[in-house]
Amino acid sequence: VKESLLVIKVGGNVIDNPLACQAFLERFSKLPQAKILIHGGGKIATQIAEKLDIETVMIDGRRITNQATLDVVTMVYGGLINKKLVATLQSLDVNAIGLTGADAGIIRATKRPVKSIDYGFVGDITAIDDKNLTFFLTHGLTPIIAPLSFDASLASMLNTNADTMASAIAVALAAHFEVNLVYCFEKKGVLSNPNNDESVIAALNPAQYDAYKTAGVVNKGMIPKLDNAFAAICAGVSQVTICHAQDLTEAINEQSQGTRLCL
Amino acid sequence: VKESLLVIKVGGNVIDNPLACQAFLERFSKLPQAKILIHGGGKIATQIAEKLDIETVMIDGRRITNQATLDVVTMVYGGLINKKLVATLQSLDVNAIGLTGADAGIIRATKRPVKSIDYGFVGDITAIDDKNLTFFLTHGLTPIIAPLSFDASLASMLNTNADTMASAIAVALAAHFEVNLVYCFEKKGVLSNPNNDESVIAALNPAQYDAYKTAGVVNKGMIPKLDNAFAAICAGVSQVTICHAQDLTEAINEQSQGTRLCL
Repeated sequence: VKESLLVIKVGGNVIDNPLACQAFLERFSKLPQAKILIHGGGKIATQIAEKLDIETVMIDGRRITNQATLDVVTMVYGGLINKKLVATLQSLDVNAIGLTGADAGIIRATKRPVKSIDYGFVGDITAIDDKNLTFFLTHGLTPIIAPLSFDASLASMLNTNADTMASAIAVALAAHFEVNLVYCFEKKGVLSNPNNDESVIAALNPAQYDAYKTAGVVNKGMIPKLDNAFAAICAGVSQVTICHAQDLTEAINEQSQGTRLCL
Repeated sequence: VKESLLVIKVGGNVIDNPLACQAFLERFSKLPQAKILIHGGGKIATQIAEKLDIETVMIDGRRITNQATLDVVTMVYGGLINKKLVATLQSLDVNAIGLTGADAGIIRATKRPVKSIDYGFVGDITAIDDKNLTFFLTHGLTPIIAPLSFDASLASMLNTNADTMASAIAVALAAHFEVNLVYCFEKKGVLSNPNNDESVIAALNPAQYDAYKTAGVVNKGMIPKLDNAFAAICAGVSQVTICHAQDLTEAINEQSQGTRLCL
């Protein structure tokens, strides 16, 4: 029987709010399972870039990462945010270790090829070092991972989407652990009615998901996220949980909140 | 017989100069021994603090670290500089892992008590987790350590002198390894004549050091550094080497450059 592992992604909406972040980390600290946290960036990088007179260019909601912006996200995601999370978790008796993709070579990527848009220093993940991550976990360490991968051939960090990173890490570790991939979300789960925040779909398997899609019930913006989540399950992840950050404990331990995706 | 370990400290003068830094990392990457790098901060933090309109207050050459300054040094030392070093070393086939004191709880400290001067968020080291550092080293990882410790009771990072950190790490690991603590220096070593950069003293034991001090030969500014270095040797470090960054290879492998301190 494989040991349980939680791979939890928390986004900028929690990171940006000190009270919500502290409450989230307290909940996270009490989860008894082996766990990995992948954190997003939030608005701090944009605010610091503005103060440093670095223009933030967004195309289709994606940040274009030039060298100056890469330096800012490396500082803010890999330094300021990551170390604040680690120091707080250490104070909560979690033996946290902050990592970017470059550290111990855990997340390798290639710089995204330029097609119609040059995204700049953005990484498409090519390899996860599941051995080093497993080594940290079995030693009782809790990896706290910033949304930065790296390209060894360029000797460069690369800006990387935290959702994608969480999914890739969950899939890579499914060989060693029974993985529950948890996305903390602004809503309480996948909604059957986007206008009713309480209309959470408790469980979805691929057939039910297809039926919801056919009926036009699932919000269109959720479809790429759910397609990716089911792809992770097909690649060996045992369960994907989508829940609000404040329901983390109940969604994981009691399975009484959020949406659970499984086969 | 204990395995050899190099604990190497490199300062801001190298970090601030991209060509010198790249050359240093290439030399570092080729050293066959187990090794740890502790890096200083350099001028980048001061420049970024200025751009962010955070005033840098220095008293007796020491930065006063208020909360805004702590955030800057956490970003710059723990993020920007540390991850650039790690990504470059990974490209040179060193399995580097960037760490601050908070990561895996390796360097605990207390916030310096306020006496005549309030240094702010500055850490006085209380404990090094030699077990976790040994665990990384024996797994083939090369820790790259930023000059930041942490206080779990405050859930805060703390600004910490890199020289002091290197010495404390070297002493803590002397129980497990035969440690050579290497300070990369602006000069080629300890000089018998401060006006002659070539007047390097090749070797110093405590008796020779006392004789040089009595004769007034050693530059007064060096005395606290050398006192600390001999204290490290008395606490179990096998050797302290003081050399120029560009002489790293010869100073370590051939013992033909720099100053060596031992009993």
